[in-house]
Amino acid sequence: MDIDNQRLGRHISQRFNNELEDLRNRVLAMGGLVEQQVADAVVAFASADAALAEQVIVKDMKVNSMEVAIDEECTQVIARRQPTASDLRLIVAVIKTITDLERMGDQAERIARMALHIVDQDRVRRVGHYDEVRTMGNYVTAMVHDTLDAFARLDVEAALKVPRDDLTADRQYDNIMRQQITFIMEDPRSITRSLDVMWAARALERIGDHSRNICEYVIYLVKGKNVRHTSIEEMEQTLLGKR
Amino acid sequence: MDIDNQRLGRHISQRFNNELEDLRNRVLAMGGLVEQQVADAVVAFASADAALAEQVIVKDMKVNSMEVAIDEECTQVIARRQPTASDLRLIVAVIKTITDLERMGDQAERIARMALHIVDQDRVRRVGHYDEVRTMGNYVTAMVHDTLDAFARLDVEAALKVPRDDLTADRQYDNIMRQQITFIMEDPRSITRSLDVMWAARALERIGDHSRNICEYVIYLVKGKNVRHTSIEEMEQTLLGKR
Repeated sequence: MDIDNQRLGRHISQRFNNELEDLRNRVLAMGGLVEQQVADAVVAFASADAALAEQVIVKDMKVNSMEVAIDEECTQVIARRQPTASDLRLIVAVIKTITDLERMGDQAERIARMALHIVDQDRVRRVGHYDEVRTMGNYVTAMVHDTLDAFARLDVEAALKVPRDDLTADRQYDNIMRQQITFIMEDPRSITRSLDVMWAARALERIGDHSRNICEYVIYLVKGKNVRHTSIEEMEQTLLGKR
Repeated sequence: MDIDNQRLGRHISQRFNNELEDLRNRVLAMGGLVEQQVADAVVAFASADAALAEQVIVKDMKVNSMEVAIDEECTQVIARRQPTASDLRLIVAVIKTITDLERMGDQAERIARMALHIVDQDRVRRVGHYDEVRTMGNYVTAMVHDTLDAFARLDVEAALKVPRDDLTADRQYDNIMRQQITFIMEDPRSITRSLDVMWAARALERIGDHSRNICEYVIYLVKGKNVRHTSIEEMEQTLLGKR
């Protein structure tokens, strides 16, 4: 390769890096929007804020179109370049990540629709009527934030924390289920409220699962090990050398 | 290109087609195993069959290793060939499909673990103790079967049926939830059984969602339209020209 070709090679490789960097930034922008959607959906639900709920529903279209655009860009980048195995792994991780992000957005939208439905029914509310949902919602929103951080920094240690948090979110969900059933048994008139709470908790629990999925792609991307089929303990032992 | 090169080109292209065909067959083999796992998990749960439950748990490792192997093969095929945009789309659809299949397998394994847990508790059972789970389980197993058929034949019309069936599965889930809560209110001693039923129904409902996801990849693959963000009615209108 002569000097001109080397320069050309560097130039192409530089442009390719720019494209990968651009993909990464677009995923983070999409993730930031999804995180905001989850946070807003929880507030809209817990505070019966119809305007905010409507905003979440409208913005889900933006989340969807971001996924389509990034997915398309990934295919184009692969078709245009001949990415190395490691770059390809990054692109595949992006394709999988945006699928999960889009589904988190869908769950946020569903929570917002339920919030609107509750407002429409004009039910009597006490202060802190949906505090369980708010608490679990804040926890899951923080998980989404940590997930995006782990993705942005390709930080395995940060990514390993999320599956553990997801176990906590699953426990929160189980506790909410049992608690609401106790409430219904004590006062059958509370059934409508309890079903709403159980419903929202289920959507939040799924958002937690999607966060966990994304963190597993991050770990796989960095470590090249498929950790989806490993227990958290094994993951930590393998990746951090903990015993 | 001279004749020898043409022959070489055909030979390479033939080998590439064989590789794609091989990928497709491996996905179908994995899907067949997952379908069996779902069916077995439901029977193990509904009939308290510990041996069958243990078999489902052991076989989930096979599902997992199939996913890892196919995922790896997809990356290698992309890296080795320079697939055309349409072949690339097929490979990306395979990557996404096996992710959903693996998660369906996980849900089947969770149902089997719950079945074992129930057997361990040695509870009193009446005939047809978990009939709701059996009914919904059969419905969802048929959805998985139809999904694999749609994938095997790249049949858009068949693929369009599954999202509609998924709405029915969602309704079955909602009905089971409400029904179990009524049972608990009538007889609080039924709470353990009812929580088990709600729990299994939730796993089945998720399996239905994963089937729907795969059918959306099939439609996207064939039609090149992203239907994930479209209502079922819009999908049918757009793809089948129905009004």
